[in-house]
Amino acid sequence: MSLTEDRKEVPLYIKINPIDNVAIVVNSGGLPEGTVFACGLELKEHIPQGHKVALADIEQDGEILRYGEVIGYAVHSIIKGSWIDESLVRMPTPPDLDELSIGNKVPQPLPPLEGYTFEGFRNANGTAATKNILGISTSVQCVAGVLDYAVKRIKEEILPQYPNVEDVVALNHNYGCGVAIDAPEAIVPIRTLQNLATHPNFGGEIMVVGLGCEKLAPEKLIPDGDAATIVVLQEQRGFHQMVEKITKEAEEQLKRLNSRKRVTCPISDLVVGMQCGGSDAFSGVTANPAVGYAADLLVRAGATVLFSEVTEVRDGIHLLTPRAVNEEVGRKLIQEMKWYDHYLDLGEVDRSANTTPGNKRGGLANIVEKALGSIAKSGSSAIVGVLSPGEKAKEKGLIYAATPASDFVCGTLQLASGIHVQVFTTGRGTPYGLAMAPVIKVGTRNALAQQWHDLIDVNAGQIATGEATIEEVGWEIFRMIIEVASGRKETWAEHWGLHNALCLFNPAPVT
Amino acid sequence: MSLTEDRKEVPLYIKINPIDNVAIVVNSGGLPEGTVFACGLELKEHIPQGHKVALADIEQDGEILRYGEVIGYAVHSIIKGSWIDESLVRMPTPPDLDELSIGNKVPQPLPPLEGYTFEGFRNANGTAATKNILGISTSVQCVAGVLDYAVKRIKEEILPQYPNVEDVVALNHNYGCGVAIDAPEAIVPIRTLQNLATHPNFGGEIMVVGLGCEKLAPEKLIPDGDAATIVVLQEQRGFHQMVEKITKEAEEQLKRLNSRKRVTCPISDLVVGMQCGGSDAFSGVTANPAVGYAADLLVRAGATVLFSEVTEVRDGIHLLTPRAVNEEVGRKLIQEMKWYDHYLDLGEVDRSANTTPGNKRGGLANIVEKALGSIAKSGSSAIVGVLSPGEKAKEKGLIYAATPASDFVCGTLQLASGIHVQVFTTGRGTPYGLAMAPVIKVGTRNALAQQWHDLIDVNAGQIATGEATIEEVGWEIFRMIIEVASGRKETWAEHWGLHNALCLFNPAPVT
Ligand SMILES: [Ca+2]
Ligand SMILES: [Ca+2]
Ligand SMILES: [Ca+2]
Ligand SMILES: [Ca+2]
Ligand SMILES: [Ca+2]
Repeated sequence: MSLTEDRKEVPLYIKINPIDNVAIVVNSGGLPEGTVFACGLELKEHIPQGHKVALADIEQDGEILRYGEVIGYAVHSIIKGSWIDESLVRMPTPPDLDELSIGNKVPQPLPPLEGYTFEGFRNANGTAATKNILGISTSVQCVAGVLDYAVKRIKEEILPQYPNVEDVVALNHNYGCGVAIDAPEAIVPIRTLQNLATHPNFGGEIMVVGLGCEKLAPEKLIPDGDAATIVVLQEQRGFHQMVEKITKEAEEQLKRLNSRKRVTCPISDLVVGMQCGGSDAFSGVTANPAVGYAADLLVRAGATVLFSEVTEVRDGIHLLTPRAVNEEVGRKLIQEMKWYDHYLDLGEVDRSANTTPGNKRGGLANIVEKALGSIAKSGSSAIVGVLSPGEKAKEKGLIYAATPASDFVCGTLQLASGIHVQVFTTGRGTPYGLAMAPVIKVGTRNALAQQWHDLIDVNAGQIATGEATIEEVGWEIFRMIIEVASGRKETWAEHWGLHNALCLFNPAPVT
Repeated sequence: MSLTEDRKEVPLYIKINPIDNVAIVVNSGGLPEGTVFACGLELKEHIPQGHKVALADIEQDGEILRYGEVIGYAVHSIIKGSWIDESLVRMPTPPDLDELSIGNKVPQPLPPLEGYTFEGFRNANGTAATKNILGISTSVQCVAGVLDYAVKRIKEEILPQYPNVEDVVALNHNYGCGVAIDAPEAIVPIRTLQNLATHPNFGGEIMVVGLGCEKLAPEKLIPDGDAATIVVLQEQRGFHQMVEKITKEAEEQLKRLNSRKRVTCPISDLVVGMQCGGSDAFSGVTANPAVGYAADLLVRAGATVLFSEVTEVRDGIHLLTPRAVNEEVGRKLIQEMKWYDHYLDLGEVDRSANTTPGNKRGGLANIVEKALGSIAKSGSSAIVGVLSPGEKAKEKGLIYAATPASDFVCGTLQLASGIHVQVFTTGRGTPYGLAMAPVIKVGTRNALAQQWHDLIDVNAGQIATGEATIEEVGWEIFRMIIEVASGRKETWAEHWGLHNALCLFNPAPVT
């Protein structure tokens, strides 16, 4: 990345790769026609912030290069200094999944990072936790109204007596009854619910509220041989007794959870998820590379790091399969891409359905450009594992966890995969939060960090203006993960109690 | 329907149609081997309550008849007095959609029922309402956490100052951003959200909270030319200001809504939805026929009645197309069945995915038997219109509103179609409720009404034991609709504030 200047007032652009023939305008509010950069480049027209300027003349059908990759072809000839609006960019075909190199550029292991720990909770099965939460799972959507009523009462009347328990969370969702439970793809929502029910932040306590006539019986959420509390509403004598029963069973679990204390755990016990939402052209040059740097630090310290979002990886897949640690991992990565291509085909759309109007206003021409910025979150280490949607992470190191890009769908699936903390980068801004694990929000622009002063936890915008380096912000994120995982620092989402409902990924039909 | 006896202690079965060769056991706990009915039939084995007894010998591959229809074929020969468990019933193929008669048995209009009114709210556009609610719509799931926080505060601090407003409801959902907005089927969730935003129970006040970068822009939820309040979170200076802004805008609408008073409205202004959930073998002989009788009363009084649930209609479609008022309505009915067949095909399942373990324990052998009981909710009048999922009802009279059978998906779609009240029948029992409109729950069995004494509003179980007739319970439901629509009587779900979140039907892929 080359910065032409490091002060705010002078015109700035960011060029990522030496071969790029476009760069993005840094200055807030954009830059007017006639602006001259230090390098001598003169703007032929106004260019909004985050949008692309042509660094050289590009002929019709010529390659438009960013991140050293072709992000598209010129619809007509473009003169140096012009604004390359999305309408000028013809999208390339996605990488051919049958022609990818696997494992031919596996990165060498990075030097180990030793001595970092966090203060977490130790579970009986050996896993660690960053929160001490009572989670109440549900086997079917029908029970949600009753459980909401009961949980409100438990939080108001019972929880205050158990100060070491941080929250009571109802795992409500839209699944369980009117579902094609034998459809081939039903395994996705089912294993997601199974893995959510045993999330490490629930301290090994499993509680399920079911109705009694649902297809997804409560027992199906509980691993064989594990102790669990099940409340079946059809066995209760009415609403009042349902609420009493749930409250009483919850209190038994609260007593046990309340006896837990934070203990020192190695960083290698952590599972950290990376996601982006509301991306702009800065995502790929500020927040995502800083998160990628933090991902490398975590991997060096022995932790597990997940990155996700198939439609934002699909167009950069040729940059990822060479990093697969072996043939099997590379094949599974390709298989997840193929599964998603087919899934989108059935719905008569393709990956171009991903980009939003906000992405485009933010300067992203298409999904190719978005993807190249998105995969920066993965850092630079070898990819040691691949998870299908909702599978639990088992390996240490960098793992690709296949999920839709949609923020709360990805969040729910990463929780099922076992994340203890999520790092979420945002350019346009989204007030994202999860109930089951802390979320650290990283903003891509100074203006967003100023505007959303009580929502953005880390400002990576300083990277664009030269006030901070990727390394510095990467370390800031890494240290913040430790503080948040230890309960010493609250994220803004935790501070406000801000979170969305779970959002299951169900590729099977609804009946 | 023939009842062999009308006292509880003697053995009872229900045979629906004179040609049926099976009947269901009425007695709670079932009946033991050797039981002799008044007609002389003797049980060859124990038969659980709600399960089928063979009234005659049936040879292998012979027709098993209930509701005067073939519900399946005998897997092996069955002796008179035996239990016909689901494993003995081979499912028939569904009616061929290209071979259906249309409009050849259009029922004559039933005699008008005059003079019935309810005390509702009158909207500026001429529609009526049964509730006076501030509804706050959302264009994207990302805003849900912030809106939940704001609505909690509004309900606690502001709403008490506006006593004529009954509730503040956040219309949160899982849609808007990471969605294939141009997919052919995306029209379903989009029009659902559009029609929910303008639900008559919101009194013509339209308020939408959006993020700012979503595909489904807030403006897309608002009909052309309608006044509306839009709050865009990306335009606010942080979380605190978001909450302030939503609260301030909501209060403006609360002031206007608070000035409204109930006025006398004709029943013909009502739109009533019929649904069943957690069905058993009694659903089709007690609750659903009583609801069908109430549907006829509503149609006679000039109201609009919706029935739904494609997979529960599919196997009885040959009984419905003859009731279509004209060729166009009949064709649209068939088209909705074909759309769903195709939708299930894509997911590699068929309509047999509908029945739940609870249905089967309740005595329903398969979806054919379930469907024949389910369509009883439609009563006996002509079908005058058909709605695709989420379309708004325009005609008066009986309308088929195509929806999945899944309870909260159907509920959400019927709300989009404009229902003011829903009547919900349940056999196994589900604590169902909606936030936007009252739900009257009708139980199919005496035991359920006793057990769930503080959840079931109407007990249709007395029909099975001969303590009440279908007509009597039908009138009870009709009168209760009027009381509930007038705000004079609270349903149990209203009493407890019991409701589930909206559950959008999105047949398009998630990206
Ligand atoms: Ca993203
Ligand atoms: Ca995302
Ligand atoms: Ca049903
Ligand atoms: Ca239903
Ligand atoms: Ca209600």
